[in-house]
Amino acid sequence: MHGRRRAIRFALAAWLLLATAARAGAAEPLASWNEGAPKQAILKFVGDVTREGAPSFVPAPERIAVFDNDGTLWAEHPMYFQLAFALDRVKALAPGHPEWTSKPPFSAVLAGDLKALAASGEKGILELVTATHAGVTTEDFPKIVAAWLDSARHPRFRRPYTEIVYQPMLELLRYLREKGFKTYIVSGGGISFMRTFSEKVYGVPPEQVIGSTIATQYEVRDGRPVLLRLPKIDFIDDKAGKPVAIEKFIGRRPLLAFGNSDGDQQMLEWTAAGRGLRLMGLVHHTDGEREYAYDRESEFGRLDQALDEAIAKGWIVIDMQKDWKKIFAFES
Amino acid sequence: MHGRRRAIRFALAAWLLLATAARAGAAEPLASWNEGAPKQAILKFVGDVTREGAPSFVPAPERIAVFDNDGTLWAEHPMYFQLAFALDRVKALAPGHPEWTSKPPFSAVLAGDLKALAASGEKGILELVTATHAGVTTEDFPKIVAAWLDSARHPRFRRPYTEIVYQPMLELLRYLREKGFKTYIVSGGGISFMRTFSEKVYGVPPEQVIGSTIATQYEVRDGRPVLLRLPKIDFIDDKAGKPVAIEKFIGRRPLLAFGNSDGDQQMLEWTAAGRGLRLMGLVHHTDGEREYAYDRESEFGRLDQALDEAIAKGWIVIDMQKDWKKIFAFES
Repeated sequence: MHGRRRAIRFALAAWLLLATAARAGAAEPLASWNEGAPKQAILKFVGDVTREGAPSFVPAPERIAVFDNDGTLWAEHPMYFQLAFALDRVKALAPGHPEWTSKPPFSAVLAGDLKALAASGEKGILELVTATHAGVTTEDFPKIVAAWLDSARHPRFRRPYTEIVYQPMLELLRYLREKGFKTYIVSGGGISFMRTFSEKVYGVPPEQVIGSTIATQYEVRDGRPVLLRLPKIDFIDDKAGKPVAIEKFIGRRPLLAFGNSDGDQQMLEWTAAGRGLRLMGLVHHTDGEREYAYDRESEFGRLDQALDEAIAKGWIVIDMQKDWKKIFAFES
Repeated sequence: MHGRRRAIRFALAAWLLLATAARAGAAEPLASWNEGAPKQAILKFVGDVTREGAPSFVPAPERIAVFDNDGTLWAEHPMYFQLAFALDRVKALAPGHPEWTSKPPFSAVLAGDLKALAASGEKGILELVTATHAGVTTEDFPKIVAAWLDSARHPRFRRPYTEIVYQPMLELLRYLREKGFKTYIVSGGGISFMRTFSEKVYGVPPEQVIGSTIATQYEVRDGRPVLLRLPKIDFIDDKAGKPVAIEKFIGRRPLLAFGNSDGDQQMLEWTAAGRGLRLMGLVHHTDGEREYAYDRESEFGRLDQALDEAIAKGWIVIDMQKDWKKIFAFES
């Protein structure tokens, strides 16, 4: 009898061990999401399009998922992180440009006068971007960005910008890839800027990053070809530019699109207009304590018309305060 | 003893079956290539960059291979196949454009006067392309191309254009993908034109096709968003445009590049200038019997300066007559 009991106990222990191992292997998807409508809608949608034999089934090569970056995958306050890079870059380059101290918008940056900078409008911002993002080769620019990302810190969270990323969205990206989706970034941010960290931080390789571009030019210098970044905007990947860029770079309509601002509205409309099941979602910044609370009046990431359309059409609206257990991985 | 013999015979049969299955699974790579320098160089290069632990090893995500299309993957004589499409399209659209009968270059097309068409130069060709490739949505254009590909026949081979593809290059594409490479097309041809058949014919999905583009515009028609193709060239993906497009679309330097004309020269130079092992190759059209023989003087696919550079730098030059057992799959 002792032998039998021992055998039963051993079998039970083995079974427990195996069951635990199986659970650990198939980690719960979307662990940082609270139960609620957004999580349920995502799980149901992914189940529907990946269930073989179902009428809603979509073959893996057509499972294209697109994500905005600023405000959707990482934060965008108190200002777009790439703008913080441009401002730091103006300061770094200023010694070589004595004329900047009296030339807006550079003078505003050097004086730390963000109000005057804002008053310079889009034209001023574009001037800053071209002055700070051009004039170097495509090989040197990523090194400049990487050095900045290593040393710069977010003013509120006192951490590298690449840590100010939303843990629930990282889980969503990973979950989709596990389910055969190809995950893309489609952002108004600079394509070369984002590619310096997209693979490491989001698991998104450079060829799946779509963004705004400046013109480049092929030159042979001392027998060695280089691509020189020119002070000239090539394409702004925002608003109606997003569907244009998706068609150009991917050539397939996304099955799923997530954004957070009016800049993403056309991308979501374009996705929604496809045949069969599609999933559209907006990240709504509702948590002033753990992150930031803003929408219709915000200077960065304004969410106004797209929010109305999302509510009218039943797109997912993620309430960051309510729907996310955790916003950043570094939260205790 | 009978039982033992039977068991041995059974074991032998099973072993033979397994061995045969294993051979069938690992078909000989590059079967249509003759033994010779190009085949050996390809096999050696792929071995070197995929051998784990070797100093020349390259991780799979960085194994980017780029291929020109016209003259590299499919033929380009007696004229670029997409030009044949444009000419047929002019004829199809002519009833709605009575003014074309007296307006060059359309009048030349309608009169079948290829000499006058050639005299209209690049400007004339661009006029033809914008008139025949624009004015429709991005959803309708592929349908027009697909219908043409279904009905049009190559004037010499009397087969659909999508069969006038080089069997050895199909084998090379497949072999590279089996070895973890991501295969891209980087062509002067229209991106949307090529995407209609690239996946089926080459196994290259739309998002890995890079080509020339015309501008598109996002519009909402009766509540439904469309992308309208505008009669305006956005980008010509040829010569120095190829490295520019590779950097924009892929953001990584290719490990391997194949082309066949001076339009590919900068793409090969850009590839060659990367660190570590790189493989550059040109398809040299030397077989007037099975295909076409042309190089320095050809109107379509001129190979002159790039050939000199390839010889000087030791890039692979594929002699189609000598190096390929078979050019087309339909050859007996």
